[in-house]
Amino acid sequence: MEQFNIYIKNNAERFIEELKEFCRQPSISTQNVGLEEMAELVRARLERLGAEVRLIPVDDGPPLVFAELGQGERTLLIYNHYDVQPPDPLEEWESPPFEPTIREGKFYARGAADNKGNLVARIQAIEAYQAAVGELPLRIKFVVEGEEETGSPHLAQFVQENRDFLAADGCLWESGGKDEAERFVLYLGLKGIAYLELRARGAKSDLHSSLATIVPNPAWRLVWALSTLKDKDDHITIDGFMDHVAEPTPAEMNMLEAIPFEEEKIKENFGIPAFIRGLSGVEALKKHLYEPTCTICGFKSGYIEEGSKTVLPSTATVKLDFRLVPNLTPELVERLLRQHLDRWGFEDIEIIAGVGEHSARAPLDAPIVQAAIAAAEAVYGHKPVIYPTMAGSGPMYPLSEALGIPAVLAGIGYPGANVHAPNENIRLADYFEGIRFIRELMRRFGEE
Amino acid sequence: MEQFNIYIKNNAERFIEELKEFCRQPSISTQNVGLEEMAELVRARLERLGAEVRLIPVDDGPPLVFAELGQGERTLLIYNHYDVQPPDPLEEWESPPFEPTIREGKFYARGAADNKGNLVARIQAIEAYQAAVGELPLRIKFVVEGEEETGSPHLAQFVQENRDFLAADGCLWESGGKDEAERFVLYLGLKGIAYLELRARGAKSDLHSSLATIVPNPAWRLVWALSTLKDKDDHITIDGFMDHVAEPTPAEMNMLEAIPFEEEKIKENFGIPAFIRGLSGVEALKKHLYEPTCTICGFKSGYIEEGSKTVLPSTATVKLDFRLVPNLTPELVERLLRQHLDRWGFEDIEIIAGVGEHSARAPLDAPIVQAAIAAAEAVYGHKPVIYPTMAGSGPMYPLSEALGIPAVLAGIGYPGANVHAPNENIRLADYFEGIRFIRELMRRFGEE
Repeated sequence: MEQFNIYIKNNAERFIEELKEFCRQPSISTQNVGLEEMAELVRARLERLGAEVRLIPVDDGPPLVFAELGQGERTLLIYNHYDVQPPDPLEEWESPPFEPTIREGKFYARGAADNKGNLVARIQAIEAYQAAVGELPLRIKFVVEGEEETGSPHLAQFVQENRDFLAADGCLWESGGKDEAERFVLYLGLKGIAYLELRARGAKSDLHSSLATIVPNPAWRLVWALSTLKDKDDHITIDGFMDHVAEPTPAEMNMLEAIPFEEEKIKENFGIPAFIRGLSGVEALKKHLYEPTCTICGFKSGYIEEGSKTVLPSTATVKLDFRLVPNLTPELVERLLRQHLDRWGFEDIEIIAGVGEHSARAPLDAPIVQAAIAAAEAVYGHKPVIYPTMAGSGPMYPLSEALGIPAVLAGIGYPGANVHAPNENIRLADYFEGIRFIRELMRRFGEE
Repeated sequence: MEQFNIYIKNNAERFIEELKEFCRQPSISTQNVGLEEMAELVRARLERLGAEVRLIPVDDGPPLVFAELGQGERTLLIYNHYDVQPPDPLEEWESPPFEPTIREGKFYARGAADNKGNLVARIQAIEAYQAAVGELPLRIKFVVEGEEETGSPHLAQFVQENRDFLAADGCLWESGGKDEAERFVLYLGLKGIAYLELRARGAKSDLHSSLATIVPNPAWRLVWALSTLKDKDDHITIDGFMDHVAEPTPAEMNMLEAIPFEEEKIKENFGIPAFIRGLSGVEALKKHLYEPTCTICGFKSGYIEEGSKTVLPSTATVKLDFRLVPNLTPELVERLLRQHLDRWGFEDIEIIAGVGEHSARAPLDAPIVQAAIAAAEAVYGHKPVIYPTMAGSGPMYPLSEALGIPAVLAGIGYPGANVHAPNENIRLADYFEGIRFIRELMRRFGEE
């Protein structure tokens, strides 16, 4: 351990310079900016570790970077992405997004937290291990994609076509970090998601609202249809939907009980008097992590500007986002919703399917989870907070559950990181702690 | 009659030139363009009839023109407005909106149909009567306002302050015309209107949709609230609301039975397979004219652009337009809605009241109605189609029911007039028929 830490210390400046180099290269997937150049930077850096690296082309998209190195009984799959969110609004950045700047111990740049900081810290941890400790105690496979911020449209297909060389015993997901009280957090999964748009149509064009007596109104059609999907107490009432939702086991309830949940602070931050159903404590957490959602993300119909216009709308659309727990797949949700709408007399309402992702969860006793817990205790000096899942979603399923590989989320972030926002940053102290965490994780996962 | 018609014929060119002069003057109330100039034109033209004319100033608005002339036992109140809708989109006009142009027997200009054509035809009918027949057989009072297109914000107050000199036995409302089958139509009233906006609020800003598990969603709040206001078969279910709605009397049902209702053509024009509740014939007409509406004119919440965004909205607003039958006033509707929302647990939903107008209806046996029917038969050669009310609304109530004056709508329009749209026009033949109709109406209402 001493040698490792000394190596880190001696190379700290170069390490930061390397991260700056990554962050100077714009790589905005939604705008198709700088992605090829960024993939080359990732390839070159991984090759300097001695890894065998391949750029895997995808149709109409930036290449996936796949790399392998090390030998051992166990294999660790590491998932990261080299693309970033657009930097807008530019005027809110205190220093330019692609000119990395250090102020008061914080490293500011687009991608610093999401996700280049995590990627570079992991690479540098491996370099330091090789230089200061010796040969890696396990085999490592990197999957670094360039389309995470646009919904990973090619990841599932890549996995499908390359199942064999992706085989691994555990997976370290892209990110993670500390909570408001500086506790290190591990997440053991992600919810799935189904994004569906519902559309209703009335007359062929907007009409004078005096005709609403006899001409059907698509906005009302959607309101009536939606009101059958979820009741006023936020229970999803789509026929058969909740049959697929499992209650947490006693062991999972124990995990929930151990999660610190500062509900008053959260309510104050959001400016709300109470949570849904007036829930509190572990019951609120249970709903948050173990229940699916059916959320109106957007509703548009008719005249939506200031003032009044007496119009009978010809169309109405609603965007629905379902966050999915295990057993609820995007395909199942779309099918249940179609059947429900038909049964309730809303055959006329069209469903347009958008993004879909399956949920993924690792069991608490998976070796990668246990190794991450032990590594966190060693580096951070306390038991990590363990979430059975995040409430959010991501493309974890194809690389984890679909391949039988348990995955854990751990990283160098913190609540002030401004992910997807102006002034994205990481704290340098977190960064170097994160490098030590990766060293401990490799050791414990590889040697135990 | 001969003398009158000869006078019209001899003065036809000048009459059209006078209408052009009125239409050349822009008078756009929403943009406060040309209103004072237009009021002066109206005043000057009425003075040339020998009327006693006053421009009545209103706070922050263009003046009302009030004029009186003629003597007789009966008094006819004539309501018109000198303001027009904005002409946009300009590029769709075949000739400029304020350069009146005649093509194929049609007179094109903004205001031609709504409402300068009607106003000038009425003035010219009076001139011709005086010149060709003799002294007017009745007293006439003109109320010509300049704010109809912005909701007549000062009309009710003007009436309130001037009840005495507005006294009359009947009222001729601003417009009217022929239907698709060239039948002359009389409308005996207008529905009222209450335009209300409902607003719900959630967190103080939009949040990541994964938080929809525990943070209330204002779009769902509105959906749930709205679903208690009207059922899937379009029955308004606001507590106590329908108690105020009267069934048509047998005499009124007879009126409905006599209205030609080309429902297949209407459905085809609107591109709908069926009317609400599958209604047909007189039952559809009854709902159209004797039932109030509760219409979603606009619904806005969250992300409404193309594509997907996983957002939990912080606000949701819906614009509701109620078309009102007698006994349902805007004030009553707002009160019933507030009580209903409170009773159903939606105290948090805010109501913002917008435009409100009372309904007004004249009885079929009112002398002004009977005179209009007889005048229509004499001029158009057939019994007019009589609607007990329009399905639309307007500021009729203060000048009619509030003063005990029955009002009828009759005018020079036709279905192709493009009211409020580019290429607004009237047919010159309708214009001169309309002048003769006014002559017959004055004679029959004044002498009988």
